[in-house]
Amino acid sequence: MLGLMQDRPLMISSLLEFAARHHRDAEIVSRRVEGDLHRYTYADAAARARRVANALDRLGLAFSDRVGTLAWNGYRHFELYFGVSGSGRVVHTINPRLAPDQVAWIANHAEDQVLCFDMSFLPVIKAIWSQCKTVKHWVALCEADALPADTGIAGLRSYEAWIGAESDTYAWPEFDEKSAAALCYTSGTTGHPKGVLYSHRSTLLHAYGGALPDALAMSARDAVLPVVPMFHVNAWGIPYSAAMTGAKLVFPGAALDGKSVYELIEAERVSFAAGVPTVWLMLLNHMRAGGLKFSTLKRTVIGGSACPPAMIRSFYVDYGVTVLHGWGMTEMSPLGTVCNMKLKQLELPLDAQLAIMGKQGRALYGVEMKIVDPEGQELPWDGQATGDLLVKGPWIMASYFKGEGGDPLVGGWFPTGDVAAIDPDGFMQITDRSKDVIKSGGEWISSIDIENIAMAHPAVAMAACIALPHPKWDERPLLVVVKKPGAVVSREEVIAFYEGKVAKWQVPDDVAFVDAIPLGATGKVQKNKLREQFKGHKLPGA
Amino acid sequence: MLGLMQDRPLMISSLLEFAARHHRDAEIVSRRVEGDLHRYTYADAAARARRVANALDRLGLAFSDRVGTLAWNGYRHFELYFGVSGSGRVVHTINPRLAPDQVAWIANHAEDQVLCFDMSFLPVIKAIWSQCKTVKHWVALCEADALPADTGIAGLRSYEAWIGAESDTYAWPEFDEKSAAALCYTSGTTGHPKGVLYSHRSTLLHAYGGALPDALAMSARDAVLPVVPMFHVNAWGIPYSAAMTGAKLVFPGAALDGKSVYELIEAERVSFAAGVPTVWLMLLNHMRAGGLKFSTLKRTVIGGSACPPAMIRSFYVDYGVTVLHGWGMTEMSPLGTVCNMKLKQLELPLDAQLAIMGKQGRALYGVEMKIVDPEGQELPWDGQATGDLLVKGPWIMASYFKGEGGDPLVGGWFPTGDVAAIDPDGFMQITDRSKDVIKSGGEWISSIDIENIAMAHPAVAMAACIALPHPKWDERPLLVVVKKPGAVVSREEVIAFYEGKVAKWQVPDDVAFVDAIPLGATGKVQKNKLREQFKGHKLPGA
Repeated sequence: MLGLMQDRPLMISSLLEFAARHHRDAEIVSRRVEGDLHRYTYADAAARARRVANALDRLGLAFSDRVGTLAWNGYRHFELYFGVSGSGRVVHTINPRLAPDQVAWIANHAEDQVLCFDMSFLPVIKAIWSQCKTVKHWVALCEADALPADTGIAGLRSYEAWIGAESDTYAWPEFDEKSAAALCYTSGTTGHPKGVLYSHRSTLLHAYGGALPDALAMSARDAVLPVVPMFHVNAWGIPYSAAMTGAKLVFPGAALDGKSVYELIEAERVSFAAGVPTVWLMLLNHMRAGGLKFSTLKRTVIGGSACPPAMIRSFYVDYGVTVLHGWGMTEMSPLGTVCNMKLKQLELPLDAQLAIMGKQGRALYGVEMKIVDPEGQELPWDGQATGDLLVKGPWIMASYFKGEGGDPLVGGWFPTGDVAAIDPDGFMQITDRSKDVIKSGGEWISSIDIENIAMAHPAVAMAACIALPHPKWDERPLLVVVKKPGAVVSREEVIAFYEGKVAKWQVPDDVAFVDAIPLGATGKVQKNKLREQFKGHKLPGA
Repeated sequence: MLGLMQDRPLMISSLLEFAARHHRDAEIVSRRVEGDLHRYTYADAAARARRVANALDRLGLAFSDRVGTLAWNGYRHFELYFGVSGSGRVVHTINPRLAPDQVAWIANHAEDQVLCFDMSFLPVIKAIWSQCKTVKHWVALCEADALPADTGIAGLRSYEAWIGAESDTYAWPEFDEKSAAALCYTSGTTGHPKGVLYSHRSTLLHAYGGALPDALAMSARDAVLPVVPMFHVNAWGIPYSAAMTGAKLVFPGAALDGKSVYELIEAERVSFAAGVPTVWLMLLNHMRAGGLKFSTLKRTVIGGSACPPAMIRSFYVDYGVTVLHGWGMTEMSPLGTVCNMKLKQLELPLDAQLAIMGKQGRALYGVEMKIVDPEGQELPWDGQATGDLLVKGPWIMASYFKGEGGDPLVGGWFPTGDVAAIDPDGFMQITDRSKDVIKSGGEWISSIDIENIAMAHPAVAMAACIALPHPKWDERPLLVVVKKPGAVVSREEVIAFYEGKVAKWQVPDDVAFVDAIPLGATGKVQKNKLREQFKGHKLPGA
């Protein structure tokens, strides 16, 4: 027997219409590529998203056709999120930090029909437009008069001219909530990027889960700054959760340096900001240099890669900002865990709380997780046992777009490629990526543990630990270090710094000083490149 | 094209299993009918809910068969919520404050196969069991040795004996998330009660919505006291939202007097409590009499009927507790609106904030609402226009159980029977029940407005306003008042109290003093009984 409740599909369009009706004057503030601040409201955003939907109808785009974006966080990108998905098409966010050829490859693989781009990416588009076989319409996210006449790009128009002619009323369609809504490619270390195809249902459930008090805790009392890009896993779902709750949105555009981010936080009275450690490092350095404080920021969620304990402590102790360590993946929409204290932990001493905040946190309801040994046997949640981390749930991927890579699930579970421990309270801690673990003499050394210790050394700006082959131990750790400007530190001093902090056999065998560590398009250390770079490096005693 | 996300149904069983895994030692504390406190954890609750599921399998109950409950808020009731729904049956909560004949009528209409009851309701069960034709199994929620031998009830057993023999492992089934999960009857003022049949999907979406920061804001840092009964609209969904978030649960059992509730809040360090105004009135009276303060309570959600402004002020100003005024209905799972401030309102002066807190609040995402005039035309959200309030959404009813009452929807919208205004910020204020509005000379007088003013008079303990027929004005208001013990106040003084507070034509024509005002089974004033009682009352000048 079925229940007798209303049969209403979960539709992305309803999020923005809800915000426009219930939070009509809540602000959306965007730093534009031009450098100025643009301000308007949810009511304005909804009106313009409806124009986008009408414009797509006029172009004759079919249900589920893909519309690509190559854009920073800003109000036009936000309108595309809702106008494209809401009208039944698929918004396909492309990472502009990828090489132009990769952008073209992805646009072709996704069969994008329209591609909308910020003017800062015009050089990329000029370089690739002729390779993009399926794209019929190129839309520059600018005013009509900002569009250069001589780009040579066939079918190029400005966004404002394109939607300006359309009506701002639109009857959003209702359809199967499992229909495709958004597409995001994730680049593995080998092979071509693979697409993850989100549905309206998965996006809405994720928006509910992400807004919960134990996740991002979003409400109509927040001013939210998503520094995490909208081109990368939908900015952790923040545009959707913000519309669901009526939170003020503050978009940073392309200006992610410490000064710009700090000034935006202060000027727009941001209460909550989300980003990756590399961006927060720039922010903290700027603040330290200027002796600055936050006047409104209360909490920040940090994910994308593990947040160094020193950064968590600095935010919390020096600046009074609670760090919510988070973990997720493109394949997970992306939120898996967020590190929020439990009732019984609220009165723990500072160091004990900081130790908890260093973990990636607890699963949101909607994410099931387990750790398993190499034979697939589930391991206990004792905070000690480490194993491969597997997840399942309604906002976790079942397979990649077009079936690339075959069936990724193992008995219904998605293997994350992370190695983790889970404590009895359900706090999960990533100890490594499976492929980054250093396998020394039958024991595993977590490259992240080794990096976190190095990052706490006052002379170290950045550190990465990789495995090098070793004749006796199979693999041994090499630490690659970028010094802080002007800092002086020796190999021996760095190695001595590990004394008493880890077991002797876990101490790196060698330290290599470099000017820069290669970062990928999402800000993560590219360890495959480091391994390539140090392929011939000979460890002492090896 | 469909998205490529995992196809996981939303199942109530997964809520409790999530809590058992991620919040295994979070507590559930219950004041038992015996008077003592029972304590255990989510892990314990899940193990016993699995026993319930096994016990129902052993009885041979079919999918969707109904299991009735007649019980206070407590751990066994909590186990039934999950064991019954999780195993595919329907938990049917019956209001024990109804007359025994009504209980029997409802059990028969629902075709309950099993009926589980607290020992305090044994007299009711003794009186009706032979009338309940479909109930094959009677389960007293007690230990085996607490069961009297001579009840005469065929097939009676104790809950502990019933589930004690079962295994605490169980493979929860997965099935269509739109399947029926819970049934609750709502008593209108005329005719038989009608059943609302919730689904797993509606319950889960409601649990997400209800836990949001702008709704009940539930997290693993809360200790939650649902004073609102589990036999009435599933205690506003708190048992589900608590399991979803790992909040500590504190169940008050049958002891709802001010002293018992206060002591439980203090002893269990409750941070959040939910209840109806009548219960909170007892609590505040107890606290005032003893000069008591709260040491942990931070917020309370008050619904079921409008909360008098004086109570909101007292909680907020005298006791530092934020009152979240809420509104909903059995037909709405029940949450529709909760009154949480917006960003721009956080720095308003106290009186302006209190004025906002007096409204029923903003819709949760998942609830669409509108107000319409008698012709069904939508009215503006200007805070002035009042009209019939209509709602729709995935946790709002489509039709009553067995189709009783026909199709209740109007163009897809459920008419709530409430009259409301909505301000430009989306804050909704109930001005009356449609049937309680006093229609005087073509104008409407809100009975709630008139009652709220009377409730602010120091001599008035309780007040209700009803329409009496009038030869000239069609209807005019009569105010019915219960004085505070020992208070002295005259009809003229009460009428004079309205001066300057409402328009002259809105002042009641007469005041009738009574010893008690009739309350229904859910604590609401029974205005139909009052209208009956004062049918012959002659208003001055009429």
